[in-house]
Amino acid sequence: MMSKAPIFLMAPLALMAYDLMPVPAKIQPGAGRLRIDRNFAFVQLNGYREARLEAAAARLVEQVARKTGIPMNPGDGVQAPGASLVVYCDHGSAPVQAVGEDESYRLTVTPAGARLDAPNPLGVLRGMQTFLQLVDLDASGFGATAVTIEDRPRFPWRGLMLDVARHWMPLADVKRTLDGMAAVKLNVFHWHLSENQGFRIESKVFPKLQEMGSDGHYYTQDQVRDVIAYARDRGIRVIPEFDMPGHATAWFVGYPELASAPGPYRIERHWGVFDPAMDPTREETYQFLDAFIGEMAALFPDEYFHIGGDEVNGKQWDANPRIQEFMRAHGIRNNAELQAYFTRRVEGIVEKHGKKMIGWDEVLTQDMPHSVLVQSWRGPTALAEAARQGVSGILSNGYYLDLGYSAAHHYAVDPLGGAAVNLTAEQRQRVLGGEACMWSEFVTPELLDIRVWPRMAAIAERFWSPENVTDVADMYRRLEAVSRDLEWLGLTHVSEYQKMLERLAGGGPVAPVRTLAAVVEPVKDYAREEARPYDAFSPLNRLIDAARPDSETVRRFAALVDRKSPEDLPQIREWLTLWRDNPARLAAVLAHSALLAEDAAVSKNLSAIADAGLQALDGKHDRAWIAEKLALLDRARQPQAELLLSVEPAIRKLIEAAGNN
Amino acid sequence: MMSKAPIFLMAPLALMAYDLMPVPAKIQPGAGRLRIDRNFAFVQLNGYREARLEAAAARLVEQVARKTGIPMNPGDGVQAPGASLVVYCDHGSAPVQAVGEDESYRLTVTPAGARLDAPNPLGVLRGMQTFLQLVDLDASGFGATAVTIEDRPRFPWRGLMLDVARHWMPLADVKRTLDGMAAVKLNVFHWHLSENQGFRIESKVFPKLQEMGSDGHYYTQDQVRDVIAYARDRGIRVIPEFDMPGHATAWFVGYPELASAPGPYRIERHWGVFDPAMDPTREETYQFLDAFIGEMAALFPDEYFHIGGDEVNGKQWDANPRIQEFMRAHGIRNNAELQAYFTRRVEGIVEKHGKKMIGWDEVLTQDMPHSVLVQSWRGPTALAEAARQGVSGILSNGYYLDLGYSAAHHYAVDPLGGAAVNLTAEQRQRVLGGEACMWSEFVTPELLDIRVWPRMAAIAERFWSPENVTDVADMYRRLEAVSRDLEWLGLTHVSEYQKMLERLAGGGPVAPVRTLAAVVEPVKDYAREEARPYDAFSPLNRLIDAARPDSETVRRFAALVDRKSPEDLPQIREWLTLWRDNPARLAAVLAHSALLAEDAAVSKNLSAIADAGLQALDGKHDRAWIAEKLALLDRARQPQAELLLSVEPAIRKLIEAAGNN
Repeated sequence: MMSKAPIFLMAPLALMAYDLMPVPAKIQPGAGRLRIDRNFAFVQLNGYREARLEAAAARLVEQVARKTGIPMNPGDGVQAPGASLVVYCDHGSAPVQAVGEDESYRLTVTPAGARLDAPNPLGVLRGMQTFLQLVDLDASGFGATAVTIEDRPRFPWRGLMLDVARHWMPLADVKRTLDGMAAVKLNVFHWHLSENQGFRIESKVFPKLQEMGSDGHYYTQDQVRDVIAYARDRGIRVIPEFDMPGHATAWFVGYPELASAPGPYRIERHWGVFDPAMDPTREETYQFLDAFIGEMAALFPDEYFHIGGDEVNGKQWDANPRIQEFMRAHGIRNNAELQAYFTRRVEGIVEKHGKKMIGWDEVLTQDMPHSVLVQSWRGPTALAEAARQGVSGILSNGYYLDLGYSAAHHYAVDPLGGAAVNLTAEQRQRVLGGEACMWSEFVTPELLDIRVWPRMAAIAERFWSPENVTDVADMYRRLEAVSRDLEWLGLTHVSEYQKMLERLAGGGPVAPVRTLAAVVEPVKDYAREEARPYDAFSPLNRLIDAARPDSETVRRFAALVDRKSPEDLPQIREWLTLWRDNPARLAAVLAHSALLAEDAAVSKNLSAIADAGLQALDGKHDRAWIAEKLALLDRARQPQAELLLSVEPAIRKLIEAAGNN
Repeated sequence: MMSKAPIFLMAPLALMAYDLMPVPAKIQPGAGRLRIDRNFAFVQLNGYREARLEAAAARLVEQVARKTGIPMNPGDGVQAPGASLVVYCDHGSAPVQAVGEDESYRLTVTPAGARLDAPNPLGVLRGMQTFLQLVDLDASGFGATAVTIEDRPRFPWRGLMLDVARHWMPLADVKRTLDGMAAVKLNVFHWHLSENQGFRIESKVFPKLQEMGSDGHYYTQDQVRDVIAYARDRGIRVIPEFDMPGHATAWFVGYPELASAPGPYRIERHWGVFDPAMDPTREETYQFLDAFIGEMAALFPDEYFHIGGDEVNGKQWDANPRIQEFMRAHGIRNNAELQAYFTRRVEGIVEKHGKKMIGWDEVLTQDMPHSVLVQSWRGPTALAEAARQGVSGILSNGYYLDLGYSAAHHYAVDPLGGAAVNLTAEQRQRVLGGEACMWSEFVTPELLDIRVWPRMAAIAERFWSPENVTDVADMYRRLEAVSRDLEWLGLTHVSEYQKMLERLAGGGPVAPVRTLAAVVEPVKDYAREEARPYDAFSPLNRLIDAARPDSETVRRFAALVDRKSPEDLPQIREWLTLWRDNPARLAAVLAHSALLAEDAAVSKNLSAIADAGLQALDGKHDRAWIAEKLALLDRARQPQAELLLSVEPAIRKLIEAAGNN
């Protein structure tokens, strides 16, 4: 397969020359190029200094070395020192990184050197990432194209939520995720630490939480401190989430008295919404939570503390006469009001321990203090409603990385879009940004990067860059560059994908598996959970698990089809021929790979529609032919083995055009 | 490019069904297959138990999970437990792993379960690796084909020497290397810790060694203890090497008084053999070495201690009147005798600290105690000579991984080959095995795995398997399987190779770069050092750095050419066409990649010989045509950009055959 570099004529000219993501607030092209070779003297720190800046400088040197393959220069005088990146930092940042702290910087690159100015270390960290992205290869060697950049984020809250509870994610996976976040200027790591399926952090006060609720898979408090320091080094806040009163079965394994029905409880092995919920009517529940939240509030320095609050089905409450009696006695009319009562009590505890509370939409009630922050999984309407009530919020609806949508899909979602467009300027200020969510029903450590990256980078751009940066084609062009950068950083979204295809091929030829994988994508939304029963031990080693929501092949093929240029015909034909003929090559692999068996039908469908596409190219066809082929396409677009043939819409265009030739 | 699974008819039938490397001493095929799915209950330990076995069992579970993508089963009763691997270990092994300790095991796999018996934990470790290699995918799913294996190594000493001095290798790279070594049953990690270019370990007694001699790149003693424990957990001995009296410039930066000429000294930045050498005539030298070796002998538990001893050019000795006077006074006639004097003194110190000395060939002198071990970099003759003198030895000549030779080349070298064939049985016992050597002039951490793996696995088979296991085609077939296994283990020889090609492409299409890379190999022996000046800061980011000594593409193409079957013609033609047409596709990449510029000529040569190959397929040609094309091939086989066109010999056969059609 010959791949050609895509040509995008729509992107603003100023952006074309730079592979930056997120796009900076202001770019002024310069003249010439800063050369980066073995004589580049790397980073000089000036002004305010601290260990974090030294470490960031050392990482930058290492990352430039990784990206270029040029060894680090220990500066021992053997080499003539050349240009360098000179950093000026004005003052320190807050002891605990705060929402809305200045992250601005100014970066100037000329052929003589680079200069990075920032008020505080956060801006330096952001600017260094921009510098790293500027480094590229051209006919003269490695370097950075001259430019002046003035940059600051659009939103102060730019996050990723990682669910380490449904599938356990070891420490190394968390740190690697933080590396990637820093690369695209994200600043909030939201750590979803407890769930029905696992309690993932050591409590010294209530050790049965991790001892009985985690299968031994939890972070020690030392490891948590390590992660917090690692994140702070990269300008990232860490916010823990302990989901309550629902999503809490794993707590009840060790402490069944917290639940609203008698135990015993076992760690939940299935996915979904379950009945167990904390008992909001017993004072002992709040005593427990007071001690627990106190312990965790001391461990996590961030000013925010997430208490979850989502998806309580209320069945345990309905079934418990004592709870029903409590509700009657206190004039609580329904389960929503009972949860609101619980949330207010917990909010008081969180506040007592010096924190502001965050919760999912459900925690928003009329009498909630304005210090509470709402994270909206339900959508922009809830967020706008909160803003009108004077409550700040962040958007997660539209940024669920587990639902199989493309980068373009997420890129189109704006925290200030939807219902927020009618807010007043003051209300709009309450929308602090957003968080992508990586729920992990279908994500093991080996799949983590495949699912998060590179799409997360496009969302990070939505959170950082000016509102009018919306060119999808240019986004994808830059996404390919940032994807390569992320692999140099140690992320594994490309290498693990290759390994998964190797596994699927079972030692046979990988090429036909790769061909098929390049034109399929996962079913969307919650279709996968509906397709078959899954649980915590389901192998996630099938084509659907490797399949990417974004296919570069399909994007390029579709662009050629849309361009309708005669010179692209040979390339279109080559692709269609490859797909049409793929089943014959795949047959040898299918014969000895049980994992691929379910994909034979997908492969056959691909072949059939590619064949139709080739026929379409061969000339004008009559209505009956068109109708027959459209029916074929309709069948081929049905989900199969939880996969969609993502190349189908482009081939459909060829068929439709064959009637209008 | 469609790849077809190769067909090798020459391999013994008993081996065909098993992707094992090294090949076990005895294999008895069984009937049926042990299924490995989410109900597999994994490992049960019986008999002698220790923490090392528990850890090994946990790693095996994790590795099977990685290889299959099937999650680990915490055994909580939710799933029905199925078959398992039942381990019986008779007794513990030596507190410090010793040369020649029993490593045997017996492994039986049936559809009902697997059983592993071993006298001690070393055998269990080896047998677990065999079990992991047996796990594969077929049309029924993952499993292990039934078999009975009785296994033990041919040689007791099976090592890899890693030079972490010329290029620094961080701790993670060392550990990853140990993982790979364990997978192919190697048992000695020889750690080349000091060189002219760096002193890589913390000395508390002489801290200027690392403070002034390492650019800050050294292992702390805690890290060393960590590596030793990590290696012991995997059944691997760790032997430190401190090269003396030559190859020692980095020592002299902090302690110039050790040298034979006044300082000051600086860390050497170039490659080669240099003049500085320890002063063998001053008692202070031996006092220093006594204290230093004492410190290191306490840190490293292994009974052997490597003092290097190679390549002293003697120039500092010749130029020092005091040393000359000493030699006259003591009747020392030449530098070889002076080094022998030094070596005997050092041997006494090593022995005093409870260790046996190892050194390179040069340490072998008539009066050396028989406890000394010789590591031969010069060749089998030196080893045979040592054996005749009653001195044991290991072979490294022929196993230098830095010299660009193929797996087949190293595979053909036998520790008991060459001059050793004339040894008596008793003398042969003194050849304990061998060590591959990874000298790191051209190896950075990102290149380490590319250079070591998978070739190291073929050498490991030479050290472990019966002498008559020599089928090269079957070796390559199994090497592909073990290569995939090693990537699951975390080795990066495949993923880093892909990244390097991406870097070379500089954001342009990678496919034509991959096509070219698949048919070139590095120049051999020391041709690279002679090609141009290199030093410690030379970027190692060119095609020569990515190029593999073994090309699967070339092997497959050559096999088709040799088979001369008409049915292979389309495939041969497809490959030749791809190569002939590659320069046009590569042009777009060349235009903006300074790194690839030097390879344009290689690409052009490839195209020209592929075109000749295509012409050869088109029919009979006259002598003049043959002569012209052979001249073309002669030119194309010349090194270019330090690369050889590895597909040239196969195309030559096509040309030659065209005259005989």
